Amino acid sequence: MLQTTPRAPRARNQAMADHRTPLIRNCWYVAALSDEVDRNLLERRLLDTSVVMYRTQAGAPVILNNRCAHRSFPLSRGYLNGDEVVCGYHGMAYAASGQCVGMPALPNAPSNACVASYPVIERKPFIWVWMGDREKALPELVPDTHWLDHAQWRTISGGFNFHSNYVAMHENLLDQTHFSILHAKTGIGTPAYVRSDLDVRAEGDRVIILRALKNSPPPPVYAVPMKLEGRNVDRFSDARFESPAIHIAHAKIVNLEPREDEALEYRVNITHAFTPETQNTLHYWWFNSRDFHHTDAEIDRYVLDSHYAAYQEDVDALTWIQQLLDREPGAVEELSFAPDRPGILCRRTLLRLSQLEHGIPVQTQ
Amino acid sequence: MLQTTPRAPRARNQAMADHRTPLIRNCWYVAALSDEVDRNLLERRLLDTSVVMYRTQAGAPVILNNRCAHRSFPLSRGYLNGDEVVCGYHGMAYAASGQCVGMPALPNAPSNACVASYPVIERKPFIWVWMGDREKALPELVPDTHWLDHAQWRTISGGFNFHSNYVAMHENLLDQTHFSILHAKTGIGTPAYVRSDLDVRAEGDRVIILRALKNSPPPPVYAVPMKLEGRNVDRFSDARFESPAIHIAHAKIVNLEPREDEALEYRVNITHAFTPETQNTLHYWWFNSRDFHHTDAEIDRYVLDSHYAAYQEDVDALTWIQQLLDREPGAVEELSFAPDRPGILCRRTLLRLSQLEHGIPVQTQ
Amino acid sequence: MLQTTPRAPRARNQAMADHRTPLIRNCWYVAALSDEVDRNLLERRLLDTSVVMYRTQAGAPVILNNRCAHRSFPLSRGYLNGDEVVCGYHGMAYAASGQCVGMPALPNAPSNACVASYPVIERKPFIWVWMGDREKALPELVPDTHWLDHAQWRTISGGFNFHSNYVAMHENLLDQTHFSILHAKTGIGTPAYVRSDLDVRAEGDRVIILRALKNSPPPPVYAVPMKLEGRNVDRFSDARFESPAIHIAHAKIVNLEPREDEALEYRVNITHAFTPETQNTLHYWWFNSRDFHHTDAEIDRYVLDSHYAAYQEDVDALTWIQQLLDREPGAVEELSFAPDRPGILCRRTLLRLSQLEHGIPVQTQ
Repeated sequence: MLQTTPRAPRARNQAMADHRTPLIRNCWYVAALSDEVDRNLLERRLLDTSVVMYRTQAGAPVILNNRCAHRSFPLSRGYLNGDEVVCGYHGMAYAASGQCVGMPALPNAPSNACVASYPVIERKPFIWVWMGDREKALPELVPDTHWLDHAQWRTISGGFNFHSNYVAMHENLLDQTHFSILHAKTGIGTPAYVRSDLDVRAEGDRVIILRALKNSPPPPVYAVPMKLEGRNVDRFSDARFESPAIHIAHAKIVNLEPREDEALEYRVNITHAFTPETQNTLHYWWFNSRDFHHTDAEIDRYVLDSHYAAYQEDVDALTWIQQLLDREPGAVEELSFAPDRPGILCRRTLLRLSQLEHGIPVQTQ
Repeated sequence: MLQTTPRAPRARNQAMADHRTPLIRNCWYVAALSDEVDRNLLERRLLDTSVVMYRTQAGAPVILNNRCAHRSFPLSRGYLNGDEVVCGYHGMAYAASGQCVGMPALPNAPSNACVASYPVIERKPFIWVWMGDREKALPELVPDTHWLDHAQWRTISGGFNFHSNYVAMHENLLDQTHFSILHAKTGIGTPAYVRSDLDVRAEGDRVIILRALKNSPPPPVYAVPMKLEGRNVDRFSDARFESPAIHIAHAKIVNLEPREDEALEYRVNITHAFTPETQNTLHYWWFNSRDFHHTDAEIDRYVLDSHYAAYQEDVDALTWIQQLLDREPGAVEELSFAPDRPGILCRRTLLRLSQLEHGIPVQTQ
Repeated sequence: MLQTTPRAPRARNQAMADHRTPLIRNCWYVAALSDEVDRNLLERRLLDTSVVMYRTQAGAPVILNNRCAHRSFPLSRGYLNGDEVVCGYHGMAYAASGQCVGMPALPNAPSNACVASYPVIERKPFIWVWMGDREKALPELVPDTHWLDHAQWRTISGGFNFHSNYVAMHENLLDQTHFSILHAKTGIGTPAYVRSDLDVRAEGDRVIILRALKNSPPPPVYAVPMKLEGRNVDRFSDARFESPAIHIAHAKIVNLEPREDEALEYRVNITHAFTPETQNTLHYWWFNSRDFHHTDAEIDRYVLDSHYAAYQEDVDALTWIQQLLDREPGAVEELSFAPDRPGILCRRTLLRLSQLEHGIPVQTQ
């Protein structure tokens, strides 16, 4: 069990990010899934900015600020002409670079006209975008999610758009003490698992929690797809706050008494990508990847149904919280406890990144 | 007729409460009707604060702030465990006192964790709540409404939730000059009644208007249920601004020529309880209590229908006014006249109480 | 073609009106069409002020501020008594002058009670209102639209209420470079027309653009109703920013080879009247008046359908722009080019008029 200090909870009003903290732009965020973007113009709000997305004829994804520099017409209401997006009002044409390359009413394209073109990197199934300082948009900062596009893994996925600030979502994903309450019906986490030792590590801007539980029955969300119901396994898992944009969890189940044709180990990666739509609304995509029983449609269906049910519980909880906070007039005081440490570490990092980016002096504690 | 000073109406911009005046919290308000609160969790917004209501196993009503002290989950989305309300996110349990008494993830309940538990007094059919300074919540300040729970009285009631600040509702109830206009169709008040002498008294924080009208036909809302149509009566009535939370009116009709089996006097008490939901929305409950013809279902139906019709006219009027005021950018100037004196006395009291409570210097006039 | 300076577009951030510029009140605006106002009370929001409109028994249109001076009840929810509007709450009666002339609860009407009565002038089909300084409301400032009520002209009309600031609408009407893009489907403007010489004139607070195109085929919107398809004509047209409230365009088509029974000239006047409902919503009425084929129902239908289709494209465009601007947190930078000169002249005038009226020092450039 976690080491807690009875009757001496942590101090109130810790300096950590909450739903009012300015959004962080210097980060690679998922703008869209690869298969959402094609030769049509797609409008989406990201970090409270309206953008238009499309692919060039060669297939490269493009993300531009959606507001025409001339008279603010939304480019997403215009049309594509080759690799250029053409404004539907006066025909001002922009290259994928955001540079204006044509204006029917002028003899030459105005060289000073442009819209922001955001750095984009596609790593299937994601189209990543960088909406902060361009010189900081290093490709090596794109989080590794290679298992989502690898034949060794079978991935089931879904998504939500809902009413919540993104900070609460990060904390939710680093928090394992809500499993037995919020997810009582959907049965994530077993009592033994919740009581198992938790190792919390902060590595730079990352927060990692690790857990090991030996010789214990797995919960249905693992036991059913692995076909290990009623048997004991060793279970090793971690959950990682990778960046403001993504959270990744890994689970390794060791088959203690493998039968014929059974694997010795089973792995599951769960990827949570989410991007603030506005300060208090969120685009969210989840992915359950397994390295076993790749072609079993029944397992696919089980994973899809069980995960949607559990994540809906999180989405509902965070929405209800946000609705309550929306109507709170002033600052909101939260009380934190020892098991909240992973979330607090994450929220301190988010606050520090936001303050650095917005030129607010960072408080050290 | 009222004494008025022709061509010299009262000065403009009197210092009195209006829809922008901060709400008064140091007062017993009706939180709910007794039969609304049971062993389920009921969420309601009162004085712009979200609360959760329930009953203990022993039947005592409990009203807590709805925001869990830990991560702001609305407790009304959790569940009851005995007399404790359990947060649906992490299982934090609160006693009826608001004190946290359990947190599954901690070895001991954190002693400093609590939510506000508001003083509650039940006097059927009301559950009263005090959301201001706790030390001022004296039980003797609960308004007397004993007739609402007494066998001598037969009560018909109804309710509305509507878009209006509560100040306008108080003024409406002290104002008898709108009867012949706004309620022209529903026939509250007779011309003779409106012209009868009006006595206005301010007693401390109360405002009382009294009226007597002798040897005159009663309006249908009295004549029909009393079965005195076509006959003259003496009529004595008062209307009282009792507190920011309640307005009570009494009527005594004297039967001038009682026939066999008829009563000598008929009494009607009308109780208006209302609680600001937000600055500009209102919970409203009305009660018509009579001390005659207790078991006559036809009279019940007549009272219900006629009152709902008349109160709907008030609710509509106040809603239309509030909608207009909502879009007025600055302060709104109102012109007042001699017959507005009861309402003005009430509104001055409400302003004074609000200023006292919010630490604003009270202007004397 | 327009003289443009390639690669040297006009400077950014020109001082000109945009969607945040305070509305101009010292102007005659269309409050309603004549046939909208009768012996019923009509509520409408004009320049972000709620007004009530009706006609006296003699037929004169009256426009009053809709908020009763007493308790802010909307007069439009009351009723007419002869030429007076009576408040539905306490019966306060106002003459067409706005002067209170009766209050049932008072022995005499309070002489200091009144609501604003706005100067009104009816010139069919318009009821014009002046909501600014009364002494500036000179009748000679009412724009001339005599053709809308003259037997020589046949007028087809329609209207919209939509989500846009009015400045963008003025600029749209002075802008002919969007024809071939936004109206590509509806076919307003021919390529030759768009390339023809444009003369821009600023005359006091007016902006006029003139165009002449000789010996060229007219676009369908002219050719079809004039029955000149497939023939060349001379075409003279202008478009005028007359005031913040109205834009008027004239076209004269010269029949180069008139056949038997054909006219030598065809004229079309297009009148656009629009009044801000709020800062960012608009009442808009359009009128197409022709001096030929007066009684041809097929032409009527063609004009109605083709104009509604084209104006819907403008209304959609301006709505989309406004929706984007609504969510922009700060000032919005627009880039302007040589062909925007008419719109810029108009927007400079609108900014100057607004600054003069609101006491803001006018910047000279």
